[in-house]
Amino acid sequence: MAGPTSYFDPTRSSELDVATRALVDRRERALGTAYRLFYREPIQFVRGNGTRLWDADGREYLDAYNNVPSVGHAHPRVVAAIAEQAATLNTHTRYLSAGLIDYAEDLLGALPAEIANVMFTCTGSEANDLALRIAKNATGGTGVIVTANAYHGVTTEVAAISPSLGGLESLADWVRVVDPLNLAASTREALAEFAEAGITPAAFVIDTVLASDGVFAEVELGEAVAAVRDTGGLFIADEVQPGFGRLGTGMWGFDRYGLVPDLVTVGKPMANGHPVAAVLARPELIEEFGKRVRYFNTFGGNTVSIAAAQATLDVLREERLIENARDIGAYLKTELARFGTVRGEGLFIGVELENEERALSVVNDLRNRGVLLAASGPLNNVLKVRPPLPFSREDADLLLTELDAVV
Amino acid sequence: MAGPTSYFDPTRSSELDVATRALVDRRERALGTAYRLFYREPIQFVRGNGTRLWDADGREYLDAYNNVPSVGHAHPRVVAAIAEQAATLNTHTRYLSAGLIDYAEDLLGALPAEIANVMFTCTGSEANDLALRIAKNATGGTGVIVTANAYHGVTTEVAAISPSLGGLESLADWVRVVDPLNLAASTREALAEFAEAGITPAAFVIDTVLASDGVFAEVELGEAVAAVRDTGGLFIADEVQPGFGRLGTGMWGFDRYGLVPDLVTVGKPMANGHPVAAVLARPELIEEFGKRVRYFNTFGGNTVSIAAAQATLDVLREERLIENARDIGAYLKTELARFGTVRGEGLFIGVELENEERALSVVNDLRNRGVLLAASGPLNNVLKVRPPLPFSREDADLLLTELDAVV
Repeated sequence: MAGPTSYFDPTRSSELDVATRALVDRRERALGTAYRLFYREPIQFVRGNGTRLWDADGREYLDAYNNVPSVGHAHPRVVAAIAEQAATLNTHTRYLSAGLIDYAEDLLGALPAEIANVMFTCTGSEANDLALRIAKNATGGTGVIVTANAYHGVTTEVAAISPSLGGLESLADWVRVVDPLNLAASTREALAEFAEAGITPAAFVIDTVLASDGVFAEVELGEAVAAVRDTGGLFIADEVQPGFGRLGTGMWGFDRYGLVPDLVTVGKPMANGHPVAAVLARPELIEEFGKRVRYFNTFGGNTVSIAAAQATLDVLREERLIENARDIGAYLKTELARFGTVRGEGLFIGVELENEERALSVVNDLRNRGVLLAASGPLNNVLKVRPPLPFSREDADLLLTELDAVV
Repeated sequence: MAGPTSYFDPTRSSELDVATRALVDRRERALGTAYRLFYREPIQFVRGNGTRLWDADGREYLDAYNNVPSVGHAHPRVVAAIAEQAATLNTHTRYLSAGLIDYAEDLLGALPAEIANVMFTCTGSEANDLALRIAKNATGGTGVIVTANAYHGVTTEVAAISPSLGGLESLADWVRVVDPLNLAASTREALAEFAEAGITPAAFVIDTVLASDGVFAEVELGEAVAAVRDTGGLFIADEVQPGFGRLGTGMWGFDRYGLVPDLVTVGKPMANGHPVAAVLARPELIEEFGKRVRYFNTFGGNTVSIAAAQATLDVLREERLIENARDIGAYLKTELARFGTVRGEGLFIGVELENEERALSVVNDLRNRGVLLAASGPLNNVLKVRPPLPFSREDADLLLTELDAVV
C-alpha cells in the first residue's frame, strides 16, 4: 500500500480544474472521508487496454503500477468469459458446477501435492481471515506473527495483524511483529515472547515478497518457518500480491524458498479484477475446520467468478506471462539501478530513493507525464514497479525514459 | 440459512447416478469437507433465465428459493452492463469514477437523509464486519446484541456474532443474544447484563426480517432500538436479505418500523449475483472512523461491480419489481396458509410446518418435481419462499400446485 502522502489532499481541492473539483466534492459528500484518491491531482480513468489506461480527456497513461489487472486491462478472453457465463448462469457453490471443480483441480495442480484443498472467497481479506480461522482451529492457538509493516487485509481480524494500517497500537494482543531484515532471530524472539505470555502460536503469516515492508524478495524465511513449526504454529503464505506468476520464477513466491506452506492465500490478480480470492490448504486442516464450523460464502466460487478465474489462468499460461515477467523484470531491475537501490523479483520491483519527498515528487511528476507508479515501504521512499504482466520491452523503455526525464 | 439436514450426505454418494457421483467425489477431493451441497440428490445447474433454472439434463426448475439473482437469473440488462464495463475498464476507487459517484448518490437517495455516506465492500460479511468496526470505533464500546439464531456472515468478527453458525459457545464474550419473539424485554435484559459485566454496548445488529430465526417480519424493534440507544449503542440494520425491495413495502425492511438506523448493511441482491455489498451510514460515524483507520477494499466499488449494481437498481425500478413483490407476495401468503403457519412480507415468506422431517421431505420432493425451496429456522421446520423478484402469478400458481402435490 502506498503511504498516506501519495494521496490527494482534500483541503486542496480548490487547486483542481472545475470538472475534477466537482467530481471530487460530490465523491467526498457521498463516500465520506475514509476514502482516498491517488495523486496530488486525481485521475478519472474511462478506458483500459493491456498496459494502458485513458483518462476522461483521452490522454493515454502507461500503467506500471496496477497488479490486479494482471493479464492486462480489459483482456478480451477474460471479458468474454465473464460476459458468456453471466449470460448463461451465475449461481453459488451449493449446486454442482463442473466449471468450479475443473478450475479447483487446475489451480491445485499448480501447487505442491500437499496443498490439496481450495476454499473460495471474494477478497484477499476474506481469504486471510479464513486462513487464520482455520489455523487457530487446527492449532488451538491464537498467536500470530507478522512482519513489522505487514498488510494482510481489512476485516477486523486481519486488520488486527496489519501494522501498516494503524501502527503497533492497532494490533491485537495475540500479535507479534518481526523484523523482515533479521527474520530468523526476530521470529525466535517473538516465539519466546509468546511462550512467556502463555500464548500458543497459531500461525506465521507472511507475504512471500514483502510488499508493504518495502519490496524485499529475499528474507530468512526457511529458518523462521522452521522455528514457528517447532512450536506447533502453521505457515500461511500470503500470495495475494506475489502469486500467479508476478515474480517470473514460477507461480508462487514460496516456490523460491523450497518451502511448502500449510495454507496459501491468493486474491488480487486471480481473476484479473473480478472479485475472486481463495484459501489453499492441507486437507487435514480443512477437515478439522469443517467438523466444527459451517462456512458458506454466498458469492465465493460462483459460476461467473470461476469463469473469470479460469480464463485468467489460461491466458497467463498461453501468453507465457510468467516468462515475460522474468525477462522484462530482469531487464528493468538492471536498468532501474541507476535511479536507486533495486529490490524485488520479476515484475514486483522496488526502487529505494533517498527519501519520501523524492519518491512522491517522482510519482506525481510521472503521473503528469502519463506514467503510473506509487511509493511504498515503511518510509514511503520505495518506488513500487508492479505493472500488468504483459508489460513489454517497449513499455519498459518508455517507463525508463520518463523516469530519466523526472529524476 | 438452511439447516444441516437440508444438505447432501456425502456418505450416501453411492446412491447417486454415475455422472453425479463422479462430480461429487471430485468436488469433495478438491474443495474438502467444509463445503456442502443442497438436497439428498445434488443438482448441477447449467443455465438460468428469469425465475427458471435448467440442469445438465435439460430439465427445467422453478426457482422459489434464490434471493441473490433478485431481478431474475441472467437478466440481460445486468449482463450487458457487466460485459460492457468489463470490456471498457475495471479499476478501483483510488481513481475518480463518475459511475461510482452517480451510483452512490442514487443509492443514498433511496435512504433516509441522515444516512448520507456509503462504503463499498464485496460481500455482506465484509459489510457487517466493517459496520461493527465503525460502530465500535464510534462508541468506544464492544458489546453487540443479536437475535438467538442470527446469521450475519463468515469473517472471524461476524461469525462471532452469528449463533446460527456454531451455537452460543461459538460467540465472542462481548455478544448477547435476545429472543426475537420477546425482543424489547429481552434486549433490556441483555443491556443489563452488559452493565453488570462492565461491557460498553457498541451495537444492536438485526435483520429487519429475521431470516435464520424463522422468517419473522414483525418484532418489537422500535422499543429494542430505543433501549440500545439509551445506553449509547448504535442500531445496525442488516438489510442483506430484506433490502432492495424484497418485502414489497419499499426498499428496506427498517422502513416498515419508521426507524432510521445508524448503519445499514446491504449485499446479496445488490448486483444480482455480482460480488457487491456496502455499508451505509451517518457521516459522523464514517468521519470518526476515517480519522483513525485506513480502509481500502481492492475490489470494493470497482467500475464493473458498480455497473452491475446500477443496472440492477435500474431494473428493480423500471420493471416495478417492488410492486410485484408486494402483489405476488400477498397472493402467496394467502394461498400458502393451507400448508402451515405463514409469516413474512412480500417475497420473503416462511411457512412453518409440523417439524423438520416434514419440511425436508417437502423440500426434497419439490426438488424432484422441479421446484426449488429450502427449510430454515432454528428448528429447520420453516419453508423459506424467497424467489427472484420477477416471480409471476403463473410461477406462484405452479409453486402452489406442486406444493399441493407433495404435501
